[in-house]
Amino acid sequence: MMKQYEYPDKKEWAEIVERPIADYSSLEKKVKKMMLNVKKKGDKAVFRYCKEFDGVKLKSLAVNQKEIDKAILSVPLELKTAIIQAKKNIELFHNSQKTEVKKIETMPGVTCWRQSKGIEKVGLYIPGGTAPLFSTVLMLAIPAQIAECKEIILCTPPDKKGKINPAILFAAQLCGITKVYKVGGVQAIASMTFGTESIPKVFKIFGPGNQYVTMGKQMAQQYGVAIDMPAGPSEVLVIADETADPEFVASDLLSQAEHGPDSQVILITTDEKLSKQVNKAITSQLQLLPRKVVAERSLKNSKLVIINNIEEAIELSDLYAPEHLIIICKNANEVAQQVSTAGSVFIGNYSPESAGDYGSGTNHTLPTNGYAAMYSGVSLDSFVKKITYQELTKEGLENIGQTVMTMAAAEGLDAHKNAISIRLKK
Amino acid sequence: MMKQYEYPDKKEWAEIVERPIADYSSLEKKVKKMMLNVKKKGDKAVFRYCKEFDGVKLKSLAVNQKEIDKAILSVPLELKTAIIQAKKNIELFHNSQKTEVKKIETMPGVTCWRQSKGIEKVGLYIPGGTAPLFSTVLMLAIPAQIAECKEIILCTPPDKKGKINPAILFAAQLCGITKVYKVGGVQAIASMTFGTESIPKVFKIFGPGNQYVTMGKQMAQQYGVAIDMPAGPSEVLVIADETADPEFVASDLLSQAEHGPDSQVILITTDEKLSKQVNKAITSQLQLLPRKVVAERSLKNSKLVIINNIEEAIELSDLYAPEHLIIICKNANEVAQQVSTAGSVFIGNYSPESAGDYGSGTNHTLPTNGYAAMYSGVSLDSFVKKITYQELTKEGLENIGQTVMTMAAAEGLDAHKNAISIRLKK
Repeated sequence: MMKQYEYPDKKEWAEIVERPIADYSSLEKKVKKMMLNVKKKGDKAVFRYCKEFDGVKLKSLAVNQKEIDKAILSVPLELKTAIIQAKKNIELFHNSQKTEVKKIETMPGVTCWRQSKGIEKVGLYIPGGTAPLFSTVLMLAIPAQIAECKEIILCTPPDKKGKINPAILFAAQLCGITKVYKVGGVQAIASMTFGTESIPKVFKIFGPGNQYVTMGKQMAQQYGVAIDMPAGPSEVLVIADETADPEFVASDLLSQAEHGPDSQVILITTDEKLSKQVNKAITSQLQLLPRKVVAERSLKNSKLVIINNIEEAIELSDLYAPEHLIIICKNANEVAQQVSTAGSVFIGNYSPESAGDYGSGTNHTLPTNGYAAMYSGVSLDSFVKKITYQELTKEGLENIGQTVMTMAAAEGLDAHKNAISIRLKK
Repeated sequence: MMKQYEYPDKKEWAEIVERPIADYSSLEKKVKKMMLNVKKKGDKAVFRYCKEFDGVKLKSLAVNQKEIDKAILSVPLELKTAIIQAKKNIELFHNSQKTEVKKIETMPGVTCWRQSKGIEKVGLYIPGGTAPLFSTVLMLAIPAQIAECKEIILCTPPDKKGKINPAILFAAQLCGITKVYKVGGVQAIASMTFGTESIPKVFKIFGPGNQYVTMGKQMAQQYGVAIDMPAGPSEVLVIADETADPEFVASDLLSQAEHGPDSQVILITTDEKLSKQVNKAITSQLQLLPRKVVAERSLKNSKLVIINNIEEAIELSDLYAPEHLIIICKNANEVAQQVSTAGSVFIGNYSPESAGDYGSGTNHTLPTNGYAAMYSGVSLDSFVKKITYQELTKEGLENIGQTVMTMAAAEGLDAHKNAISIRLKK
């Protein structure tokens, strides 16, 4: 089912790492019109789009406490327990990303340091659609809370009855988010970009979405709002040798493939026998999947590469820059250290991508589509600004003064020089 | 000369924090055409633009070692010494931004960590024009080296004789950059975005530039290249009380004003007397400045605010989100801790912005135009990807398995659940 490459020449690598191209430029006009309409008409436009796209006539965009309380009652205890456990792990790991303030005296009397401050207003977007992504609520709301962002709002589309999935409301409440709005799609992104009567404007927008949402987030940047990262279809690359369990590998490939028909999965293996076993296991596991049709379509974009050795496998993987990278081979941990480009790395037979997707602790909002070459996944960093500070004593200024004056003069910036010389003269 | 506000009502604050609007959309078509032309024709287009815009017919784009050696000989010893001292300080501070790997066991047998890896290919843009910004070479090349980026290239426009400013070449050489190209403007950004015969494609582009370069960098993002941050005119905000020296404050305001006619400077003070003294000092210091005309024009965009107390000053400053913030008042250090939004903060009478611009250690590539609300300045972080890793033991998977399976099932993602259950069954 997957396209197979056997010991490909390096010339062929460019083809292997090629991603299915998605061109959304045809949406541009439509999305822009919606953005500007929300900017101009505020809530009125949002209510209209809600009716048009979600098929529901809402009275209010904000979810009220009564709705939240009711929803929480309806979440099964087992799911609540699971979400609470996942939160604990994610919190632990993201808390460890806090950095202490290190004051550095670069010269006697010249002290520099950095301090993180939460981005004051952030907006989290949680898509509706085929899967209610309450796990994404955890992945975004937990670091936002740790960062001490003052205003955290959440937008997610309502169903046809005007309701939000209870597990999403439970997760939001658990993470201390009090402002949840029933709005999805471009209208949600536009609301958070410009602000409406009901929905506050934010400084940075986070979260996944379909091609309309993605285009909306891109446009939001033109209006001075930051976004978490550019988006693209989800993907996994598995590097495996003969020590890998083919059943496990097949299950990992399929768990990526079921995400969407445009998901991409790649297996690079040094073991021909394994490749055959994996193919077989895929076929049999696929039969039982409710999302079989989706997974089948995605497997058609996917590739199986038989390669000479693990070193080459890593080189090819780095070139692809996978969102998720699973490494199941001898000395997997050492091999993982050699990786230079990936969003998140899963090491060994017992570290499936699902673990990271839901609750081992790492974030599941990761760079796709080759962006792992220059972007990091969402982390505590994504929710803060790191402000630099400096304090010079009189002695410090005397020590650094000549350096600064010489450089400023050479750059032709005399007022910069004066700011030093006037001080030194006194 | 500056527009003055006395004890403004909070309703007036929106006007005070307004920035001069710069609309470059008229450049879009022209810049796009240039970008695509370089994409299509490579070096040939670059040579042509070089002739058209820099007025020089080049034979080669790469600077060769002979040119570098010759340039270095011509840099005065005093300037070399200053650049070396600045490098030492900047290196010390950016080295302190390295983070150690912390392995976190979120549950028994579930271990997560993060590791920074340098972005493999980065491009630094150094503008030519009125000031040869060799200081920016240090600010970008030093963290790139510390991050261990494998390929670091530098583009900067040649003068009419086809030469690069010697101090730029000295700084580049000092920081170990071996690939320097004589190319500026949109053609430089396009070359680094697409690659040409001479100039390699990079993954992330850093550095300041005029409105054409800014537009080019914005477009580069559409082609999958990351940039350091959105750009805008430089700015400083000074918060001062009666303990501030008016001569010092005036010199700081002027050192920002001389950057360009679109620079903005703001003084917020609790002391009416100080405001008068600063105005007077500006007038007298201005007379001696070579860039007087530039500074005068910039002062016309600038504002002086007399306010009730330091708390309000900070509130107003946070709303403005200044690139540079100088705080000269009683307990300046404690006041600085209350700031929630700024690019870089300078504390006390002896910490002029010039110190940070050239060599105290902090980076001078900072978010302007209100972007300090959601972006950080350039730091070591800007040159790395932080990859997350996880390794689960069999026991770890048993501990987390139920949590993941319950959540995956509730999100309707059965293959995700299977990836766990298949493993637990074995």
